[in-house]
Amino acid sequence: MTARVRVPATSANLGAGFDCVGIAVDRWLVASVTLGGTGITIRRHGTLSTVRVRADQDLFTRGFRAACAAGGAPPAGRAGGATIEATSDIPVGCGLGSSAAAIVAGALLADAALELGLSGAQILEIGTAIEGHPDNVAPAICGGAVLSVQTPAGLVASSLRVSPAIELLIAVPPFPNDTKAARAALPRTLPHTDAVVAAGRAAALVQGLATGDGALLGAALDDVLHVPFRRARIPGYEAVVAAAQSAGAFGATLSGAGSAILAIAPRERSAAVGAAMIAAWRAAGVEAELIRSARPVPGASAHRGPSISHPVPSESP
Amino acid sequence: MTARVRVPATSANLGAGFDCVGIAVDRWLVASVTLGGTGITIRRHGTLSTVRVRADQDLFTRGFRAACAAGGAPPAGRAGGATIEATSDIPVGCGLGSSAAAIVAGALLADAALELGLSGAQILEIGTAIEGHPDNVAPAICGGAVLSVQTPAGLVASSLRVSPAIELLIAVPPFPNDTKAARAALPRTLPHTDAVVAAGRAAALVQGLATGDGALLGAALDDVLHVPFRRARIPGYEAVVAAAQSAGAFGATLSGAGSAILAIAPRERSAAVGAAMIAAWRAAGVEAELIRSARPVPGASAHRGPSISHPVPSESP
Repeated sequence: MTARVRVPATSANLGAGFDCVGIAVDRWLVASVTLGGTGITIRRHGTLSTVRVRADQDLFTRGFRAACAAGGAPPAGRAGGATIEATSDIPVGCGLGSSAAAIVAGALLADAALELGLSGAQILEIGTAIEGHPDNVAPAICGGAVLSVQTPAGLVASSLRVSPAIELLIAVPPFPNDTKAARAALPRTLPHTDAVVAAGRAAALVQGLATGDGALLGAALDDVLHVPFRRARIPGYEAVVAAAQSAGAFGATLSGAGSAILAIAPRERSAAVGAAMIAAWRAAGVEAELIRSARPVPGASAHRGPSISHPVPSESP
Repeated sequence: MTARVRVPATSANLGAGFDCVGIAVDRWLVASVTLGGTGITIRRHGTLSTVRVRADQDLFTRGFRAACAAGGAPPAGRAGGATIEATSDIPVGCGLGSSAAAIVAGALLADAALELGLSGAQILEIGTAIEGHPDNVAPAICGGAVLSVQTPAGLVASSLRVSPAIELLIAVPPFPNDTKAARAALPRTLPHTDAVVAAGRAAALVQGLATGDGALLGAALDDVLHVPFRRARIPGYEAVVAAAQSAGAFGATLSGAGSAILAIAPRERSAAVGAAMIAAWRAAGVEAELIRSARPVPGASAHRGPSISHPVPSESP
């Protein structure tokens, strides 16, 4: 009994969409599961090979077990145990949803291998409960850009229109950010006037993505809810954002809580914007890596049965 | 030298779109101007006949003079004076944009009669400067639903998609609200967690209007930025909102700062929702009037020359 899954990276917030907007990015976590044995074993490759977490506390395991519980199966699957083999080219701890990808992968592997028949909404609820917020989990599942909002009818994940005239550029430095510390940096209260500005810019983000309106996107990427309290944690932040804007980006901001920086640019300026971001970081002594996301990226897919066409890569130790 | 103008009512905020979202409503202010004489004279009819403001402080006058200034004309027009004759079926002081309509009408009358050649963006800037916020002015000019956001490139007014599957119902009580007092009721600070919720719901408003998603609209209409601090000022508010929801509305909230209450409902439930709102207010001893806005309402239009096809009505004293 085996299954395999493929889950994209994601960039959350996009400035003013704090804790509610995220977009799938063209980097992937690929994992397979083989049922049997005792307990859960995890073999990590690629960017995951630096992760040092006991298997029973790993996010794959937590997603896998939560899906088993939701589907009425024993916590390590009906076979009593499972071995998960995973690789990824998603940078870890840089604000690109590597945690959400692992949780979603674990849940989808359980769902596929054990034929639990969980819905996308159930996977979303599982992932959000473990992650604490839906903004990475939802686009990892659905692909594209997604707005996630708690409503009286439950958590709603709604796919956002994204203008084909814009492109996302993400510059990833070689150091991670501490997401917990970034969350702890947020203030307890905010001036009411700032909250009003924040709401208008969140609306501008949804409308700007749909229309490609550069002024709206510029306002949306100039967030007042979280970035002002977090950006000082990322060395080079101001220089990279300024370089992106000078090169023609509508704006730039933290990807998630950082450390990566995301810019949105008109398609014809995107190559220049990406180069300017990397150059600005290099001038600050940081060798960053550029991820371009020009096309809509699909969401996670899972298949039962052994991996044939997409073997798990093993390019790492 | 004469001109005439027609400006729609507007409902601002729509819950979470505080100070940034508004929608045109099918009630109208109709006005004409005749240049000549000394100073500005205003003759008011319809709902405007209760307005008691000196002509030089009237919003028509302020809009007219600001447009003259922007267009490089003397403050009362090149002829030295002007007589404005206006009528309206927009309730005054009830959160339906009667002030914005008067400002926009004054500005457009000056523009048309004096051939100032002002752009829509200039009329928007003039109206926003006088009104203090763009959320009524923008849909009064553009029609439909509009998102207005201050950006480094200036004030952007962007037309929002509105699903044809939804309908707006507005119940207007016979008492006005004090907009200044409603604004003074807002707190100086807000918990950061509430500001995060507010931003998500503002995004939900834009997405919910576009898609007709009832859960998103329900969350969007359950605002946390201003309505909680204002609703106690409107007798019957809780009962009318509850009645709208029970009858099938996605949600209901203040129209602007009130006193009117706006509901958004699926088209097939709209008649029942409107009736339930009126009945709930009647049970509280209030005879409210229902305005239904099923179709997109166009923005203001102005024409130079005497009124022929659309004479200014004179149904009032």
